[in-house]
Amino acid sequence: AKSYNITLLPGDGIGPEVISVAKNVLNLAASTQGIEFKFNEMPMGGAALDLTGVPLPEETLTAAKQSDAVLLGAIGGYKWDKNEKHLKPETGLLQLREGLKVFANLRPATVLPQLVDASTLKKEVAEGVDLMVVRELTGGIYFGKPRGFGTDENGEEIGFNTEVYAAYEIDRIARIAFETARKRSGKLCSVDKANVLEASMLWRKRVIAISEEYPDVELSHMYVDNAAMQLVRNPKQFDTIVTNNIFGDILSDEASMITGSIGMLPSASLGASGPGLFEPIHGSAPDIAGQDKANPLATILSAAMLLKYGLGEVKAAERIELAVLDTLNRGFRTGDIYSPGNILVGCKEMGEQVLKSL
Amino acid sequence: AKSYNITLLPGDGIGPEVISVAKNVLNLAASTQGIEFKFNEMPMGGAALDLTGVPLPEETLTAAKQSDAVLLGAIGGYKWDKNEKHLKPETGLLQLREGLKVFANLRPATVLPQLVDASTLKKEVAEGVDLMVVRELTGGIYFGKPRGFGTDENGEEIGFNTEVYAAYEIDRIARIAFETARKRSGKLCSVDKANVLEASMLWRKRVIAISEEYPDVELSHMYVDNAAMQLVRNPKQFDTIVTNNIFGDILSDEASMITGSIGMLPSASLGASGPGLFEPIHGSAPDIAGQDKANPLATILSAAMLLKYGLGEVKAAERIELAVLDTLNRGFRTGDIYSPGNILVGCKEMGEQVLKSL
Ligand SMILES: CC(C)[C@H](C(=O)O)[C@@H](O)C(=O)O
Ligand SMILES: CC(C)[C@H](C(=O)O)[C@@H](O)C(=O)O
Repeated sequence: AKSYNITLLPGDGIGPEVISVAKNVLNLAASTQGIEFKFNEMPMGGAALDLTGVPLPEETLTAAKQSDAVLLGAIGGYKWDKNEKHLKPETGLLQLREGLKVFANLRPATVLPQLVDASTLKKEVAEGVDLMVVRELTGGIYFGKPRGFGTDENGEEIGFNTEVYAAYEIDRIARIAFETARKRSGKLCSVDKANVLEASMLWRKRVIAISEEYPDVELSHMYVDNAAMQLVRNPKQFDTIVTNNIFGDILSDEASMITGSIGMLPSASLGASGPGLFEPIHGSAPDIAGQDKANPLATILSAAMLLKYGLGEVKAAERIELAVLDTLNRGFRTGDIYSPGNILVGCKEMGEQVLKSL
Repeated sequence: AKSYNITLLPGDGIGPEVISVAKNVLNLAASTQGIEFKFNEMPMGGAALDLTGVPLPEETLTAAKQSDAVLLGAIGGYKWDKNEKHLKPETGLLQLREGLKVFANLRPATVLPQLVDASTLKKEVAEGVDLMVVRELTGGIYFGKPRGFGTDENGEEIGFNTEVYAAYEIDRIARIAFETARKRSGKLCSVDKANVLEASMLWRKRVIAISEEYPDVELSHMYVDNAAMQLVRNPKQFDTIVTNNIFGDILSDEASMITGSIGMLPSASLGASGPGLFEPIHGSAPDIAGQDKANPLATILSAAMLLKYGLGEVKAAERIELAVLDTLNRGFRTGDIYSPGNILVGCKEMGEQVLKSL
C-alpha cells in the first residue's frame, strides 16, 4: 500500500473541528484506494502562540516540509488581534507559505446548482459560475522590502511597503495559470493595474511573453478596479484569473462571496516541488467555535485538492468530491447554507453523512 | 450676481457629449439662483495627447488651478492604450489630481428605488444601499517613491512601487471621512490590511487617534479582503468607508457596480483649499462615443456635487438632484438603465428632460 505523511495544522477557532472531520474522510477515501495516511498534528497560529510563544514553531515548519502534504484548518481570533506583528497568527501563516515556497494559490469559486440560492446575486447571474483564481502567494507587497516605519524629510512618521515582482516570479505563476486555464475552458484573464503601477507593467509584459508558450489559451487583461466590478456584473465571463498577491487576496474573497457559500470553498497552495498547503478559504469563525456548527465541507474539499494536486491521487479526490455532492443532494446542510426544506446538521453529523456517501 | 469660473475638461470618448449636457444644466440651475458661470474648456487626456503631445498640458493645469471648480468628462481610449506611461491619458489624470492637491475623493454609491432592478444583486440586498467611499487620492502606491524598473541581486528584471503614507496624509483624509460620516449616519468603517502591511498599521493607528476628535462617530475597522466580501454579502451594513488610494480604487468600483447603475454615479475630489475636481465615475466608453447613447446623469450629478462641495451652492445642487429624480420618475432612461415600460432616450434628450424638470 502507498503511504503518505500528512501534516495536520488544526489551528484556531473552528479549525480543530473541521480538520478532525476531514481526517476521517481522508482515511476512508484512502482505504478504498489502497492508500495509507500517517498524520502528524502540529500547533500553528494562535494555538501555537499560546503553547510556544510564536505563531509558527520551527518544529511545525520542519514537520510540514518533511511531509507529503499539509492540511490547515484556520488561524486567528480576537484574542491575538492586538498582538504585535511578529506575534500575530497571520504572520505564522505568511511564514508557512514562505517556508514551503508555495507561490501558487489556486482558489476555485463555484456555484453549485444545489446552493445557487445562497448567493446574494440574482439567480440568473450566479448560476453556472465556475471560476478559478490563481493568486501569486509568496511575492509582491506581502513580502517586498524595504518595509517598516520611519520618518519623512519633514520628520513626519511614515509607514511603507514595497510592491515588487521579479520576472521569474511572474513567469512561474503565469505558467501555472496557463496550465490551469488549458485544463479548464482555455480562457485566462490576467488582472493588474498596468495603467498606474510599474510592478503591474512588468507583470503584464511577462504574462504576454509566457503566453507564446500557450497559443491554445486565450489571454485577456483587465485592470483590477474593473475586475472588481465585472465579478459583480457578470461573474460568468471569467474562467481562470491570474493576479498578484494583494489583488488576489481581494478578488478571490470577492469571488468566493459571489458564490454565497464560502463554507464550501477549498484552496490549494503549490510550489515548484515539495509539499503543498491545503486549506479552506473561510476563517476561524471564533464566534461559533466549539459549538459543532461549522461547515466542514470546505476542509473536506481541500482534502480532495490535497489528493488531486498534492499527491496526484485523482481517483480518491474525485470520490470525495462526489461524496460531497451526494451529501448535498440528500439534503444535508450546515447552518451557513441551510434553507427551508433541507436537513439542518452540525459539523460532525455532516462529516458522518459524507462518510456514508463515500 | 455671483460669478464663478468653471474649467470644463471634456476629455475623450463620451466625455464631450456628457459635458455639453451638464453645462446646459449648470447654466439653467445657476440662472434660477442668481448665479453666473464662466466656462473655460480645455484639452485633457487623449484629446490633449493628439493636440499637444502630452496628456495634461500646462495651460490646462494652470487654467484649472485658477478656476473655482473643475468638471471632467472622461479620459482614455484604445488608441492610447499602448502608449508609454508618461504618454497615457491616465497619467494626465493623476497629474491633475496631484496638481490640484485634491487628496479626498468622495464616491457615493446609492441604489435609487427607481433603479433597484438594474443591480445584479437580489432586490432585498440592493434596495436601500446608500454608502459613501472616501478614498485617499494623492498618496499611497499611486505616487510613492521609489518606483520603476531595475534588476535584483541575481540580475533578474524587476518592477517596483512603494506604498507609503505619512501621518499627516492619513490624518487629513480621516478628518474628511469623520466629517462626512457625521453628516450622514454617524458610522465610519476604515478599511486596511493592517494584519500584513506596515503602511496599513500606521493608517489604523492614525485613524484611531483622529477618532478622539469625533466621539459622536462610531468607528469600525475591516480588512480589505473582508470588505470586498461584505460589499457583496450585505452592502447595507456600510455608511461611510474610508480607505487608501488603491483599496479605494477597487472597492469604490465594486460598490458602484453593486448599484447596477454606474451611469448614474458622480464623484468629487477635494483638497484643503483651491478648486475641487468633479467627474462621473464611469469611463470614456469609446465603443458608444459619438452615438448619442451615453447616460449624462452621472455628469449632471457631478455638476451638482460641484455646486454643493465645490462652491457651497447647496440650493442649486439640490435643485439639480431633484430634477434628475423627477426625470427618472417621468420614466426617461438611457440604454444602460433601461427596462421595459420606460421611455428610451439618448444623451441629448435625457439632458433636455432634466432641463424641463429643472
Ligand atoms: C490571514 C491573511 C494574512 C491572509 C492573506 O491576506 O493572505 C488571508 O486573508 C488569506 O487570503 O489567506
Ligand atoms: C484611470 C485610473 C488612473 C483611475 C485610478 O486608478 O484612480 C480610475 O480608475 C479612477 O478610479 O478614477
